[in-house]
Amino acid sequence: MTNSTQKIKAGILGASGYTGAEAMRLLLRHPNVEMTLLTADRKAGQPVEEVYPHLGGYGLPDMIAVEDADWNTVDVVFCGLPHGTTQEIIATLPATVKVVDLSADFRIEDPATYAEWYGHEHRAMELQKGAVYGLTELYRDKIKSARLVACPGCYPTAVLLSLVPLVAAGLIDADDLVIDAKSGITGAGRGLKQNTLFSEAGEGLSPYSIAKHRHAPEIEQEVAKAAGCAAADMRVNFVPHLIPMSRGELITSHVRLSEGKTAADLRAEIAKVYEGEPFVRLLKEGAVPQTQMVRGSNNCVINVFEDRIKGRAIVIAAIDNLVKGSSGQAVQNMNLMFGLEETLGLEQAPLFP
Amino acid sequence: MTNSTQKIKAGILGASGYTGAEAMRLLLRHPNVEMTLLTADRKAGQPVEEVYPHLGGYGLPDMIAVEDADWNTVDVVFCGLPHGTTQEIIATLPATVKVVDLSADFRIEDPATYAEWYGHEHRAMELQKGAVYGLTELYRDKIKSARLVACPGCYPTAVLLSLVPLVAAGLIDADDLVIDAKSGITGAGRGLKQNTLFSEAGEGLSPYSIAKHRHAPEIEQEVAKAAGCAAADMRVNFVPHLIPMSRGELITSHVRLSEGKTAADLRAEIAKVYEGEPFVRLLKEGAVPQTQMVRGSNNCVINVFEDRIKGRAIVIAAIDNLVKGSSGQAVQNMNLMFGLEETLGLEQAPLFP
Amino acid sequence: MTNSTQKIKAGILGASGYTGAEAMRLLLRHPNVEMTLLTADRKAGQPVEEVYPHLGGYGLPDMIAVEDADWNTVDVVFCGLPHGTTQEIIATLPATVKVVDLSADFRIEDPATYAEWYGHEHRAMELQKGAVYGLTELYRDKIKSARLVACPGCYPTAVLLSLVPLVAAGLIDADDLVIDAKSGITGAGRGLKQNTLFSEAGEGLSPYSIAKHRHAPEIEQEVAKAAGCAAADMRVNFVPHLIPMSRGELITSHVRLSEGKTAADLRAEIAKVYEGEPFVRLLKEGAVPQTQMVRGSNNCVINVFEDRIKGRAIVIAAIDNLVKGSSGQAVQNMNLMFGLEETLGLEQAPLFP
Amino acid sequence: MTNSTQKIKAGILGASGYTGAEAMRLLLRHPNVEMTLLTADRKAGQPVEEVYPHLGGYGLPDMIAVEDADWNTVDVVFCGLPHGTTQEIIATLPATVKVVDLSADFRIEDPATYAEWYGHEHRAMELQKGAVYGLTELYRDKIKSARLVACPGCYPTAVLLSLVPLVAAGLIDADDLVIDAKSGITGAGRGLKQNTLFSEAGEGLSPYSIAKHRHAPEIEQEVAKAAGCAAADMRVNFVPHLIPMSRGELITSHVRLSEGKTAADLRAEIAKVYEGEPFVRLLKEGAVPQTQMVRGSNNCVINVFEDRIKGRAIVIAAIDNLVKGSSGQAVQNMNLMFGLEETLGLEQAPLFP
Repeated sequence: MTNSTQKIKAGILGASGYTGAEAMRLLLRHPNVEMTLLTADRKAGQPVEEVYPHLGGYGLPDMIAVEDADWNTVDVVFCGLPHGTTQEIIATLPATVKVVDLSADFRIEDPATYAEWYGHEHRAMELQKGAVYGLTELYRDKIKSARLVACPGCYPTAVLLSLVPLVAAGLIDADDLVIDAKSGITGAGRGLKQNTLFSEAGEGLSPYSIAKHRHAPEIEQEVAKAAGCAAADMRVNFVPHLIPMSRGELITSHVRLSEGKTAADLRAEIAKVYEGEPFVRLLKEGAVPQTQMVRGSNNCVINVFEDRIKGRAIVIAAIDNLVKGSSGQAVQNMNLMFGLEETLGLEQAPLFP
Repeated sequence: MTNSTQKIKAGILGASGYTGAEAMRLLLRHPNVEMTLLTADRKAGQPVEEVYPHLGGYGLPDMIAVEDADWNTVDVVFCGLPHGTTQEIIATLPATVKVVDLSADFRIEDPATYAEWYGHEHRAMELQKGAVYGLTELYRDKIKSARLVACPGCYPTAVLLSLVPLVAAGLIDADDLVIDAKSGITGAGRGLKQNTLFSEAGEGLSPYSIAKHRHAPEIEQEVAKAAGCAAADMRVNFVPHLIPMSRGELITSHVRLSEGKTAADLRAEIAKVYEGEPFVRLLKEGAVPQTQMVRGSNNCVINVFEDRIKGRAIVIAAIDNLVKGSSGQAVQNMNLMFGLEETLGLEQAPLFP
Repeated sequence: MTNSTQKIKAGILGASGYTGAEAMRLLLRHPNVEMTLLTADRKAGQPVEEVYPHLGGYGLPDMIAVEDADWNTVDVVFCGLPHGTTQEIIATLPATVKVVDLSADFRIEDPATYAEWYGHEHRAMELQKGAVYGLTELYRDKIKSARLVACPGCYPTAVLLSLVPLVAAGLIDADDLVIDAKSGITGAGRGLKQNTLFSEAGEGLSPYSIAKHRHAPEIEQEVAKAAGCAAADMRVNFVPHLIPMSRGELITSHVRLSEGKTAADLRAEIAKVYEGEPFVRLLKEGAVPQTQMVRGSNNCVINVFEDRIKGRAIVIAAIDNLVKGSSGQAVQNMNLMFGLEETLGLEQAPLFP
Repeated sequence: MTNSTQKIKAGILGASGYTGAEAMRLLLRHPNVEMTLLTADRKAGQPVEEVYPHLGGYGLPDMIAVEDADWNTVDVVFCGLPHGTTQEIIATLPATVKVVDLSADFRIEDPATYAEWYGHEHRAMELQKGAVYGLTELYRDKIKSARLVACPGCYPTAVLLSLVPLVAAGLIDADDLVIDAKSGITGAGRGLKQNTLFSEAGEGLSPYSIAKHRHAPEIEQEVAKAAGCAAADMRVNFVPHLIPMSRGELITSHVRLSEGKTAADLRAEIAKVYEGEPFVRLLKEGAVPQTQMVRGSNNCVINVFEDRIKGRAIVIAAIDNLVKGSSGQAVQNMNLMFGLEETLGLEQAPLFP
């Protein structure tokens, strides 16, 4: 790893998007990192202050076009590029540059599934084979030695953290996972869309991409692994909803218990699996996870509740979609990839109210 | 019914709460109703303008204490009193006064279930026996001749409108209803609670009363009737969430299809059942119900979607919790009870944006 | 005027914008109007249900391109077109079609001022000369006989209703008007802009167009008239702020009292001027105008307060920017132009909470 | 000062309020501070996790009643107690304990003014005399040697940072300061009030305490000093507004320029005065301060704009009311009082979106 006087030089590709801004916010306070490269497409040539006024005055470099990047100036890049673009850019990077990818490009292992959901053949299959799925708590060891880490989508992060241990332990039925997901509006990105205007999204609640969201195959891939079956045989219910708040994500999973198991068994398993984890926390019995508990932090809070229907339980998890669901987990992974303390840059407490 | 020159004299008991305010808003524009009595507890003696500034200038009577009410001045009362209080007040009314109850006091038919969920024996069992459950579209005929109508809770209204026809037609499995509910914060009432402060509830998302909400037994009672079984044998999953918006309620029901049935069959049934209804509307195939579509109106929009899990479907319904979920449905019922056009006072279009 | 069996046929040009939607909402409940023409640019060919789902199911005609409009089908048009476009379209209309214009095209009387602020020479000066400024309460008589009414901007509406009577009566100094204005985000329209995205505008407060807003010359024109001086000699401070709410507008005017005058004198004048007005209301002494009091209604509430600085006072007015500030006032004007009761279609009470 | 191995032991009195929570959030990340005492009144005996779930899991001590505090366990206390209570508690502390007061109790120097605005005689006048007004950038040197620092109110912080240098330099007229202030709802505290419920405050805008807010005399005291006159002779206009957002405060000051001065002169003065300051930043010419730029940070952004009225200008400042407007400035002052780097614990970048 780097010594104390030499900082890791980080680039952020797609710095003008929300995940880029969040990566900048976190890395600004990371003691071992300096940001040496920021790229943006339409905002190329602009100072950070114009693209993100809240980050003015911190001495960050101006945004440049990705094609103008000098890759020798970076040890690692955080890729917040649009899906599809990422794989093309990353394929051109020197092998010495580590990659923490925030896009969906390297999350899906099966090429056919990727092509089905993303509408084109994968264009960097060789890289894909070496990619590690960056759900930190579940793949920590692999991440440490990876060159390319594909950070999970925001929904899969909270879904998998709360469900994979239960499936893996045989406590719940992997064939009957009903996942009712809710996200703040930053989840839809900074692009201009009518449905994310304040006057359209505010004071209202909209389900979207019902049973058709691209995070579904990603969830199924990982649940299938935990269940020991083929991804192609795994199907989950997944219904996301747009909530009138900027940040935050809450997953309400309605699950069927394995024969003889109880909600208390689920709690016990989660307690065991995440004991000692710095960011994942099982709440006290009966305490309800809320997005207010994690805003601005890399934390994930989880709890389990009995259902009124016998043989069922309710598993709830909350994260900040831009932190643990995206840029925070990316920094966590970067720390591992460079042999650093996993929590560096991520120590800040949640912001409430 | 009343002739055109003589208006129905309406009283609103508990006019200082949100359902009371909403009843006032709607009745102000009802051509056949005049409000002659408004009661409030701690706000007794105050003009409407002080309790609800937005209703100042409309010539409404001052609020008085319920014990000071002269029941001879009213033909009908809307009861927006706290649960438990209602039954005691209503028991003292002259039999000539019709009652549209917005509280939970007369919704539960089984005394034991009532006592279990509301913490005390029912104190007006005789009245309870004569009460009609006021889900207008399902009990229209009984409501027409009722003296006492128990308007459903906001959640049961949207849940039952969307699920009862499907259960009744044998299209879905009544034993596996997973009901993920979301409500705006007015649903929690005007009482002072820490969790409904702007700074606590805003920019956040909180599940609550998980599998313990009082609307669960009400839903089970009515689903059981549709399924032809005893309420005591019916259990539904019911998880409500508090959403950072004032009004609006959206129900995402994750249902198991009966053998051989499809989402399209569910849509067809809902289309058939609600054909010609003024307030309940099945959206076009693929169109997603949103609370933004119904704000301020008595409308309910419904649609059905295929699930990724074979044999399952997703049923979504949206209402304004204060209108169709409460005071609007109450006015709709009053119209029926007095032989009026069902839509009077309820014609206004939704407010968007 | 039309007889009771024959409705006024209204067209809405630019029906896909927020003012168009609001005009539709209000006219849907107008007993003497039927909407026979809806035009939209990019949404031409779409049913209303797709452009505005909340207005689905009301039997409105599909949106068409403005160039495909048959002007014989309308008695009046509401123009919610972009500034600049309006004057070109209106110039082509048959003289028998009355025009209620919601754009800024005919508000500014002085051609040079128009050109300075809107960046081009006016292209329909003849029409401009016949246009009446549609601030209903101040120009009621002229509006009754007008063919073309130029409805004021949302800010000028609230500013002028609260200040013009005071200037006209010589109670305040027209040369020292400090107007601190606040508006909900619908004021910025439905166009896609980064700063009106939920995640950018929510939980935040932004001044904008400081001392450069196009409503300033409109305000100055009318204040000058009240003061009896030339518009070119009148300058007001005008600083608008974007508030994280959809609807509502509040004007805080910090004014200098004329020698010997008091806040009470201002209250008395406003009480006198607006006595009997259906929509403008002076609140009780000490009661604070809030946008919550007027949401969804055509009402304007006003009050006056003493300042701590001797010789100054604070005048506050609140309206719903989409109703009294735009489409509601337009309907009010249309009623006058057709000899109808001024309040038709506008009777609904404010929506709160 | 403390050496690196021995941390400052801090107590937070009134830890259950929002300023208490914010102090905890900031101090959790302060490298030289450990929190050894948390007091709360009605929440005494509760773990932090129950009072503030977002701060669970950080090993903070349980809340206790203030009368049970062992003052030997603290080197410094942050007082977030209700106004009035503070002076009684502080008077009982050992002289060795430093005090950073967040209440209003020691801000007003003149006993008569204090009594007039706070409704009772001051009960700790001796302490009051030794108190230093904690507007860090203006009183840095005095704060370094103070035992008791009275942190300014949130409004005075932003008002004075932006106006005092201009008054002191004779650039603007101190007798004609029109201060239109806007605050997020956390400014009203965590107490239960009807007007801060989500359903009342959301989607709405309310002026309050018009010309009667307790921050007015505090502003006048400090402006008078800058102007070199007696506080009793200074009167400012001050109208605060409640904005539907949790955090953030924006001050729009409408000022009269001294003869011959321009907005550019004001900008130049502010640039000069705050050059090198870590937290106060003059924006580029034309860039508009927004609360979104400072959320969660201790930053203050300022800019000046020309007015349309000749001889006037508009000065705008934005802060996070809970950070620079309260607990952040308190930590900044504590750092000075203990000879630490002023920015410790306050380095985090703003949270946006």
